[in-house]
Amino acid sequence: MSEKIGLIAGKGQFPRIFAQAAQAQGHQVVAVAHRGETDPALADLVDQIHWVYVGQLGKIIKIFKGAGVRQAVMAGGIDRVRLFKNFRPDLKTLNLIRRVGPGQDDRLLRAVAGELEQEGIIIVPSTLFLEELAVPAGVLSRRRPSSEELKDIDLGFKVAREIGRLDIGQCVVVRRQVVVALEAVEGTDETIRRGGRLAGAGCVVVKVSKPGQDLRFDVPAVGRETIMIMGEVQAKVLALEAGKTLIFDRPQMITLADRDGIAVWGV
Amino acid sequence: MSEKIGLIAGKGQFPRIFAQAAQAQGHQVVAVAHRGETDPALADLVDQIHWVYVGQLGKIIKIFKGAGVRQAVMAGGIDRVRLFKNFRPDLKTLNLIRRVGPGQDDRLLRAVAGELEQEGIIIVPSTLFLEELAVPAGVLSRRRPSSEELKDIDLGFKVAREIGRLDIGQCVVVRRQVVVALEAVEGTDETIRRGGRLAGAGCVVVKVSKPGQDLRFDVPAVGRETIMIMGEVQAKVLALEAGKTLIFDRPQMITLADRDGIAVWGV
Repeated sequence: MSEKIGLIAGKGQFPRIFAQAAQAQGHQVVAVAHRGETDPALADLVDQIHWVYVGQLGKIIKIFKGAGVRQAVMAGGIDRVRLFKNFRPDLKTLNLIRRVGPGQDDRLLRAVAGELEQEGIIIVPSTLFLEELAVPAGVLSRRRPSSEELKDIDLGFKVAREIGRLDIGQCVVVRRQVVVALEAVEGTDETIRRGGRLAGAGCVVVKVSKPGQDLRFDVPAVGRETIMIMGEVQAKVLALEAGKTLIFDRPQMITLADRDGIAVWGV
Repeated sequence: MSEKIGLIAGKGQFPRIFAQAAQAQGHQVVAVAHRGETDPALADLVDQIHWVYVGQLGKIIKIFKGAGVRQAVMAGGIDRVRLFKNFRPDLKTLNLIRRVGPGQDDRLLRAVAGELEQEGIIIVPSTLFLEELAVPAGVLSRRRPSSEELKDIDLGFKVAREIGRLDIGQCVVVRRQVVVALEAVEGTDETIRRGGRLAGAGCVVVKVSKPGQDLRFDVPAVGRETIMIMGEVQAKVLALEAGKTLIFDRPQMITLADRDGIAVWGV
C-alpha cells in the first residue's frame, strides 16, 4: 500500500532526488519547501507542495497534520547564512530556540525533530530509499590519488574530523601538507573556491560526515556541481567518507571527474 | 655598548615597529627584507637593508655573517600563500624542506632557526624591546562586551585553541553562538571580512596565539588595520589572548574602536 511521506525540503538537488526515489517506490510525497532555498522545480515532482519561510515550524506541523503525514524526512540543508538573514521564526520556532539556544546545528535539528515527534510525525533518515547513493570505499574515478595526495588526504581527514566534532563544518582543502581552507558557514563550494584561489592548482578536497552525525539531518552530499567547482580551480582529488556521504548523479559526476583528471576516492 | 641585531623582516608593520624600538634602545639593525612581502619603507628605519626572495635561507646566513650579526629576530609573517606562489627556495632551503617536510609552519621555522644557530646566529623572541605591546587582560576600549557577546567570546576561544593546536590558524569569527569563519591560509583580515559578509553586523572576532607557540616566530598581532576591517563589516568585539598577542599603534587603534563602538578585550 502506498504511504504518504513528508519531505522537509532545503536547498540543492537532494529534495528532488529524494522525491523521485520515494515516488518510484510507490509513495506519495507531501513537500514543505522553503522560500528562497528550495528549488521551485520540486513542485513538478511531488504530490503536494507547500511553501514556508525558514523558521516556520508551527506551519510545517499544521501542513503535515492536515495532509495526514506520519513520517517525514529532512533533505537538503538550509543555508546556515539564513539564520542571520531573512529568518522568520514563528512562535513555535522561537520557543524552541529559547529552549535549546541557537548555535550548533544538530542540537537545534534534534529539537525540531522532537517537536514533530510530539505531534505524531516521525523524522526518518533522508537516506531512506537512497541507500545506493552512499559513497563506497575505494577509487571511483579512473585516476587514483598519488602517494603525495594520499598524505594530503590523511591530513585532511584528521582535520575534518576535528572540525566536524566541533559541529562547525565538513570540508577541508589541503595542498602539499598545508591546510589551506576550512569550512564554517560559507559551505563546501566556497571553501573549495577559496582553497583553489589561495593555493593554486592541485588541491585535495576532503569531505566527511560529522562524527556521531545523525543521518536524519544534513547528510553530506556531493555531485556534478562539486566536480565543476573543483575543475574551475584545478583541484585534483575529492576524498569522501565512505558509507556516510552521498553522491548524486554519479555517472555524470564521474565522467566529469575523469575528463578533468580528478581522483574521487571513498575512504 | 650598541650591539648589532639582525631583523628577518616579513610583511606588515611589525618589522618597522621592531626596528624603531631596537634603535631607540641603541642597537644597530641589519635587516633582511623579502621581496613582495616587506614594506620598502623599512629601508629608512634600519642601518642596513638587504633584499632576498622568499626561500633564500643560504643568502640570509651569508648576509648576517658578513655583517657580523650574532642574534636576530623574525618579525612579520611571510604570507603562507607564498609557499605556493613565487617561492624561490635556494639549496639550503630545499635541503631543509626535504628534511622536515613542508606543511606545519612552526616546525619549518624551528628548523630555519636551527640552521641559523649552527652558523652562530641565535634567533631571539621578536617581542624583545616590545614587551609593552603585549595585550593586557581586561577591557581596552570604552565599550565592554555584552553578556551575549561574552558567550560568543567563550565559544570562539574554545574553537580557536583547537585550530591553533592543529597549527592551522589563529582567528575565529562567531555570531550568536554560531562559528561563522575559521582562518587557515587566507589570514586574519580575509577571515574577518568573510565572517562579516556571511553573518552580517555584530560579529565577534577572536584571535589567539597557538598553544605552545614559540614566541620567536609569528607572534599574533593586531592593529589599526584590524579595527578598520572590523568597522567595514560592522563586527563588534575583538577578543585577544592577553600576554601572547601584540597590539601595534594602540592609541590610534583604540580611538578607532571607540568611534565604531567596538569592544576590545584581553582574555
